[in-house]
Amino acid sequence: MVKRIELIPVEGVPEVRSGDELGGMIVAALASSGESLIDGDVLVVTHKVISKAEGRIAEVASEEDYRKLVEDEAESIIRRRGDLVITKTRHGFICANAGVDRSNTAEGTAVLLPIEPDRSAHRLRVQIQHMFGVSIAVVVTDTFGRAWRRGLVDVAIGVSGLPAIVDLRGTTDAFGRVLDVTEIALVDEIAAAADLVMGKASQVPAAILRGLTLTGDGRATDLVRPPDEDLFR
Amino acid sequence: MVKRIELIPVEGVPEVRSGDELGGMIVAALASSGESLIDGDVLVVTHKVISKAEGRIAEVASEEDYRKLVEDEAESIIRRRGDLVITKTRHGFICANAGVDRSNTAEGTAVLLPIEPDRSAHRLRVQIQHMFGVSIAVVVTDTFGRAWRRGLVDVAIGVSGLPAIVDLRGTTDAFGRVLDVTEIALVDEIAAAADLVMGKASQVPAAILRGLTLTGDGRATDLVRPPDEDLFR
Repeated sequence: MVKRIELIPVEGVPEVRSGDELGGMIVAALASSGESLIDGDVLVVTHKVISKAEGRIAEVASEEDYRKLVEDEAESIIRRRGDLVITKTRHGFICANAGVDRSNTAEGTAVLLPIEPDRSAHRLRVQIQHMFGVSIAVVVTDTFGRAWRRGLVDVAIGVSGLPAIVDLRGTTDAFGRVLDVTEIALVDEIAAAADLVMGKASQVPAAILRGLTLTGDGRATDLVRPPDEDLFR
Repeated sequence: MVKRIELIPVEGVPEVRSGDELGGMIVAALASSGESLIDGDVLVVTHKVISKAEGRIAEVASEEDYRKLVEDEAESIIRRRGDLVITKTRHGFICANAGVDRSNTAEGTAVLLPIEPDRSAHRLRVQIQHMFGVSIAVVVTDTFGRAWRRGLVDVAIGVSGLPAIVDLRGTTDAFGRVLDVTEIALVDEIAAAADLVMGKASQVPAAILRGLTLTGDGRATDLVRPPDEDLFR
């Protein structure tokens, strides 16, 4: 039985500062708009507020500072053309500028990726579950470009309480034929879905995805394709 | 004001055959589960049922037939390793096996991509709007792999009634700073979201995305990154 899914924006979260208790802030923002988390919800959070709460902010006084910061944050450079630098981060993600981002942060600063976004997701999940007695999953997102396709999409860089990938191999299609390679990047689809109510310009740093009946124990790093399987590095 | 979004699976669509009136079948399936399309809905449809209705089915008696079909359907081969062939389709999309798919189709057959999925989306939209007097958008999807990230995600290969990409350049972030490069691949995020209620093994070939307050006139081919901008071919 397939159920419907609802995407609910979390509005009214105040500007997050280093050391803030993000879980409490999100639940308070929800409460003030008459909403609350319920068992089975997936809380999708842009990494930006997590990075801010974790103090992953750097001073960036100049373009030169920014370029140096990107090189420091990157584990390696995959491609470079003009100002565009495609990097591999220490987590293994391939993205522009090692995830260093100067939008939605104070002038002269940049937001870095969390050190370990899967752990950040886990901590936020445990904090909210403990404080509010609900059983939820957490997905931490960032906005990445892709090879071959124009436009950015949100993807998962951290997860807790869900499988990152749902493996349908061995299940049968409508004709009774066994599906061979059908591993779905579930948490990336969740991240993309949540962005539809989050947006970049509006101040909505989180969303609830309600109605998914799945639990699991994946990590976003499960999504990193091993270099020896990757035809495009 | 950000609103919530709902994803509603379209269940009970019978097996689609060449020449079928897909719009009528989808609306009938919705009606029999007490649901209907309303103004502003986005109808997301897997290309598979569109290809079937358009007769884009080929006989495939052997692995050799299949390989030949993939080469015929591809405009060019981007990479090849063992059985895996990454192709550029005539539409410009980069995907495995030129989109030729042997799941969820009768034994000995394969489903091809629609000749012009943007036009298929437009036809289905006009047909439903005409028959049922609602104003909707249509997104046609397929399931693609990605460079660098494991797992498949649904993406848009056809669209009518929406922009493919939402360009936020020139809008300001929460700090009043002008966002520079923030083009969001809206219809890819819609495709990914809809897959959360569609699935591969379950027989749900379409979903309604309700609550998005956007209209536009894009094409999925807008998502094709021009080769000279692409660092990964």
